[in-house]
Amino acid sequence: RRDSEHQGMAKNTNMRWRLPLVCLLWELAMIVLFGVFVRFGAEADAHWEEEKREMNLTSDMENDFYFRYPSFQDVHVMIFVGFGFLMTFLKRYGFGAVGFNFLLAAFGIQWALLMQGWFHSFKDGKILIGVENLINADFCVGSVCIAFGAILGKTSPIQLLVMTLFQVTLFSVNEYILLNLLHVKDAGGSMTIHTFGAYFGLTVTRILYRPNLEQSKDKQGSVYHSDLFAMIGTLYLWMYWPSFNSAISDHGDAQHRSAINTYCSLAACVLTTMAFSSMLQKKGKLDMVHIQNATLAGGVAVGTSAEMMLTPYGSLIVGSISGIVSMLGYVYFTPFLESRLHIQDTCGIHNLHAMPGLIGGIVGAITAAAATEDVYGKEGFIKAFDFTGVYQTRTPSIQGGFQAAGIVVSLLMAFAGGAIVGGILKLPIWGDAAAENCFEDGIYWEVPEDEESDVYHMHNPDKPASP
Amino acid sequence: RRDSEHQGMAKNTNMRWRLPLVCLLWELAMIVLFGVFVRFGAEADAHWEEEKREMNLTSDMENDFYFRYPSFQDVHVMIFVGFGFLMTFLKRYGFGAVGFNFLLAAFGIQWALLMQGWFHSFKDGKILIGVENLINADFCVGSVCIAFGAILGKTSPIQLLVMTLFQVTLFSVNEYILLNLLHVKDAGGSMTIHTFGAYFGLTVTRILYRPNLEQSKDKQGSVYHSDLFAMIGTLYLWMYWPSFNSAISDHGDAQHRSAINTYCSLAACVLTTMAFSSMLQKKGKLDMVHIQNATLAGGVAVGTSAEMMLTPYGSLIVGSISGIVSMLGYVYFTPFLESRLHIQDTCGIHNLHAMPGLIGGIVGAITAAAATEDVYGKEGFIKAFDFTGVYQTRTPSIQGGFQAAGIVVSLLMAFAGGAIVGGILKLPIWGDAAAENCFEDGIYWEVPEDEESDVYHMHNPDKPASP
Amino acid sequence: RRDSEHQGMAKNTNMRWRLPLVCLLWELAMIVLFGVFVRFGAEADAHWEEEKREMNLTSDMENDFYFRYPSFQDVHVMIFVGFGFLMTFLKRYGFGAVGFNFLLAAFGIQWALLMQGWFHSFKDGKILIGVENLINADFCVGSVCIAFGAILGKTSPIQLLVMTLFQVTLFSVNEYILLNLLHVKDAGGSMTIHTFGAYFGLTVTRILYRPNLEQSKDKQGSVYHSDLFAMIGTLYLWMYWPSFNSAISDHGDAQHRSAINTYCSLAACVLTTMAFSSMLQKKGKLDMVHIQNATLAGGVAVGTSAEMMLTPYGSLIVGSISGIVSMLGYVYFTPFLESRLHIQDTCGIHNLHAMPGLIGGIVGAITAAAATEDVYGKEGFIKAFDFTGVYQTRTPSIQGGFQAAGIVVSLLMAFAGGAIVGGILKLPIWGDAAAENCFEDGIYWEVPEDEESDVYHMHNPDKPASP
Repeated sequence: RRDSEHQGMAKNTNMRWRLPLVCLLWELAMIVLFGVFVRFGAEADAHWEEEKREMNLTSDMENDFYFRYPSFQDVHVMIFVGFGFLMTFLKRYGFGAVGFNFLLAAFGIQWALLMQGWFHSFKDGKILIGVENLINADFCVGSVCIAFGAILGKTSPIQLLVMTLFQVTLFSVNEYILLNLLHVKDAGGSMTIHTFGAYFGLTVTRILYRPNLEQSKDKQGSVYHSDLFAMIGTLYLWMYWPSFNSAISDHGDAQHRSAINTYCSLAACVLTTMAFSSMLQKKGKLDMVHIQNATLAGGVAVGTSAEMMLTPYGSLIVGSISGIVSMLGYVYFTPFLESRLHIQDTCGIHNLHAMPGLIGGIVGAITAAAATEDVYGKEGFIKAFDFTGVYQTRTPSIQGGFQAAGIVVSLLMAFAGGAIVGGILKLPIWGDAAAENCFEDGIYWEVPEDEESDVYHMHNPDKPASP
Repeated sequence: RRDSEHQGMAKNTNMRWRLPLVCLLWELAMIVLFGVFVRFGAEADAHWEEEKREMNLTSDMENDFYFRYPSFQDVHVMIFVGFGFLMTFLKRYGFGAVGFNFLLAAFGIQWALLMQGWFHSFKDGKILIGVENLINADFCVGSVCIAFGAILGKTSPIQLLVMTLFQVTLFSVNEYILLNLLHVKDAGGSMTIHTFGAYFGLTVTRILYRPNLEQSKDKQGSVYHSDLFAMIGTLYLWMYWPSFNSAISDHGDAQHRSAINTYCSLAACVLTTMAFSSMLQKKGKLDMVHIQNATLAGGVAVGTSAEMMLTPYGSLIVGSISGIVSMLGYVYFTPFLESRLHIQDTCGIHNLHAMPGLIGGIVGAITAAAATEDVYGKEGFIKAFDFTGVYQTRTPSIQGGFQAAGIVVSLLMAFAGGAIVGGILKLPIWGDAAAENCFEDGIYWEVPEDEESDVYHMHNPDKPASP
Repeated sequence: RRDSEHQGMAKNTNMRWRLPLVCLLWELAMIVLFGVFVRFGAEADAHWEEEKREMNLTSDMENDFYFRYPSFQDVHVMIFVGFGFLMTFLKRYGFGAVGFNFLLAAFGIQWALLMQGWFHSFKDGKILIGVENLINADFCVGSVCIAFGAILGKTSPIQLLVMTLFQVTLFSVNEYILLNLLHVKDAGGSMTIHTFGAYFGLTVTRILYRPNLEQSKDKQGSVYHSDLFAMIGTLYLWMYWPSFNSAISDHGDAQHRSAINTYCSLAACVLTTMAFSSMLQKKGKLDMVHIQNATLAGGVAVGTSAEMMLTPYGSLIVGSISGIVSMLGYVYFTPFLESRLHIQDTCGIHNLHAMPGLIGGIVGAITAAAATEDVYGKEGFIKAFDFTGVYQTRTPSIQGGFQAAGIVVSLLMAFAGGAIVGGILKLPIWGDAAAENCFEDGIYWEVPEDEESDVYHMHNPDKPASP
């Protein structure tokens, strides 16, 4: 059928028993753990009628479902269609891009509901879940999708599932440290999702370095239609990013503000991306890889500060800069990372998530440090940074310091975690493909007969298929 | 242009007068019937200001529009993009898949607004419609889209319109029997939409059995890009299914709960699907047909029970099982149905909708029978099953019995209705194609010149197109 | 690489310094202007807590964000995916369709926030923005996307940015005249968006008339997969159009009603489109160009009247007619416009936006003129047409007259503006391509190696690429 299948014999990539075993065992574990721990939160439980009375709510509209469900669905689309299709740009790895992203995200959200639940929604021995938990689970998995971008085409589905298990766990720990111990704001996850996810993935791909990857160089590019499929992913990520950054912000002005800031930042980012994509190419032609990716940096870079009073022009500035940084990354940094540091970053997540994530963390720290009661209003100030209880005495500049500390913690967690998990993934039991079979769906998927020969067959039924 | 066109001469597939006549006559009928019967419901009528005062509503937010419109749009996407693109997997039937789905759904929703309106929203001689009616019309048409999956590629657009007319009618009758006479709960339509729609479609395709269908076997497969287009459909169905199952549930906790249960069930289903897709293949490779379809069984299988206190772990169990059942269906059942029972099921709706629909009905019956005031709360219990008025005395176990009866009624309606409608569609006046022209867009669509020869032309303008 | 590149030498299409310069200068201008003028509106500002108290709002739900954000996201998808992918039907212009649409829309929304802000949201020297401004900016850019459809494939990205700058400016002036001076209702923008945008674009393309365009005739068609990509655009426009027409209507019944009317109109439009597509073709086959475009006319044609008491059957009538008119346009009008009036309309926007836009304006005028207190209710009547303050004495028939005047003003603005902007775009400094290089991505984009030869290479590594 496909030459690659025969070449693949060198390594045992047959998933027949390993993949089913892992999937079924883990799903079984999920069922048991959900059975022991997970229950509906008050707003999703049939006791809601009584709850409403107790909380003096006059309308079903006050159920958090109506504040967050539309944003949840947008985030959901970003994770499954956005990330999935963004990675279909490779000419012969579309099934793997969409399909493995589907697999790891579907597993990851279950495990994230548990991990994040134990840290944040645990009451009387039970994890109580509602729509906000669903969003957070999607967020957590988002960081795995990002890491997947670095190793795209080079790992087996089992490796992805193993990585997901560990990364979700580490994500939840890191998130707990940031949000609960450091009391940091990071609604859009510049630090927890992007910085952590990207540097984790980059560390993993460094550990899994494949010296002979140029053997599959012919498959590392795109074809015309695969670039259009990837644009579906890009646009859905771009359009719904305002929902991403506002999904778990406080009700009211904070959600509203997050959406506006993100909208502005993303719009600016498109223009600087286009400018630099043309400028850095000899013939001044635009490159789809840049448009597909760097246009999104603006969403990443306001992930921490979007719910703050960043203001629309502040967002334009951040978006503009992040587009430029991301573009410079694609043109100058990625080749350097590969040749010098042996970091093979298939999708360029260093440019789309790592650097813009760092920018996002820094902008967040600065915006927090610069906050004043004048700008936020007295109540708004306290609400925005949750300066209540033990945090009552925190000043903006201290908050800025803690925000900065959050970046450092996320980086350390990513490097340490990525190194350990990369080491585990290097074990020779997971069924990854040989270098010459990377970026090739035929290894793990039943691939239909080639388009061209088929069409030939169909239209010229009398002639033989091969000349 | 295309050989198939000439071969098609055997049967008269020219739609020139028949299709326009049917479309225009039916649209005219819709206009007349809408003119006589359909008006805006109170929440969409300009008298709303007065209505608000009478109902003591303090906010425009209490308008049902804001409770249901986001879910409506998600459902809308499922019907038109979800079902439409899911069926584009065939290499040369993409236009028919998306286009005919568009046609039948656009007609079907109009007829469904009338049929369901007469049964459920009829007041003083008028059908009063609002956003919930739009959702229900989409739901009703969903059952036609399902049936379309069984006969995909084998029927003319007129046959599809005729089938839509009858199926929407029968759907509405069946729905009325279930919801009003049996007082059954079925918010996500496991019985009314999936079981009914699938067995209806399977009966129709049985009646329309084509003994020589292997003549078009070369066109029954997919090509690389058509499989990616189909994944767009799959993912939108998968992502928005929580909206589908919660769209018409009661405001508040019921909508919230439905979304969570469906989210969990679908996530589990992906893992068991992947496991069995790999396990049941000799080389352990994943098959796109399975991923495109069986991953959705989890949404179908909680259609009845999602709004009940199924609980997240219950959902994981149901989702896991439905993925396995669906997978076994694709590998073992579909070939059996075709060879022994002469049921040619193009998209495998038996595996995606019929069996999971039955599971959904049964799980719904069991969950209802197992309901207790303890789990639901006193008020929640009454609200969840609407045990008011004449149904005040119903116990959970009786409700479970009625739920089970609903499955049986849906099956009987599907078999009887499918047989009659199949008979009608067998009349030789509808312009269906010969067996060798099935699964081929060229029969009913202007198809652009072949891609390959075109590109050739373009890049080598000096050379002749054919060697 | 590509022959066209060499042929393109005749004209200097190198964007290397021009495009970056324009993008960066304009983004810089945006940052400065936003810095001076744009601030958060009350509902997005951190002072919202105090605002809520002052306005006696009891719930965060009363924030306009929750009334409009879901619709905003739908509109956002229409602009970027809807218009973007609708235009990917050309076989070799998919990158330009999606990519340039992305570029001009991202720039346009920033400039629209300013222009519309100065006219409508200007308070104490500041433009105060909220979610409604975001929607309006998207709307404004929608009119540019429409005009883009007429000149698709024939202009450089710089020309598009220049056109966007001027068109957004003129749009805002026209909108101000209609909404504020004439006090016209046009929530879905039949006049302001569609009529204005389309006739503006048609005038521009007339001025830019290319007598030798048949030199690139081989690239003006579609291929099989490009038609499927275009259907993604079509369906998203079709599905979300109810959100488009209801997005900025009054809270409550008006939004609800707009969605229902649009839903009905679009459904009817699909049937008449299919009927006439089949009827006007010799062999009765459906044409994808028609299905991709004329099915949307129903949304355009109720753009003005959707929020009025058009009623569902009125919507069916309008939708039916608009589908027919649009179809006649594609078959008879477009060739006439090109051969006689030298209007080269790549996407047929005359059929999809111009004529249906006029219908929409007229239907709006009639529906307004026919309004009665009986139909709307006393309060509803005043609210629907905003007959307050200086407009207290307006009667429906006078309103109808002003609505009609709105059509005329929009047309005049479009013709005059289009002529001026067309003249500017004719200057030989913008880097547009020669006639034989139109509709070809290779001029402005890095295009990957041809699919067929690549795949060949990949699967037969030992054989040479060309026989």
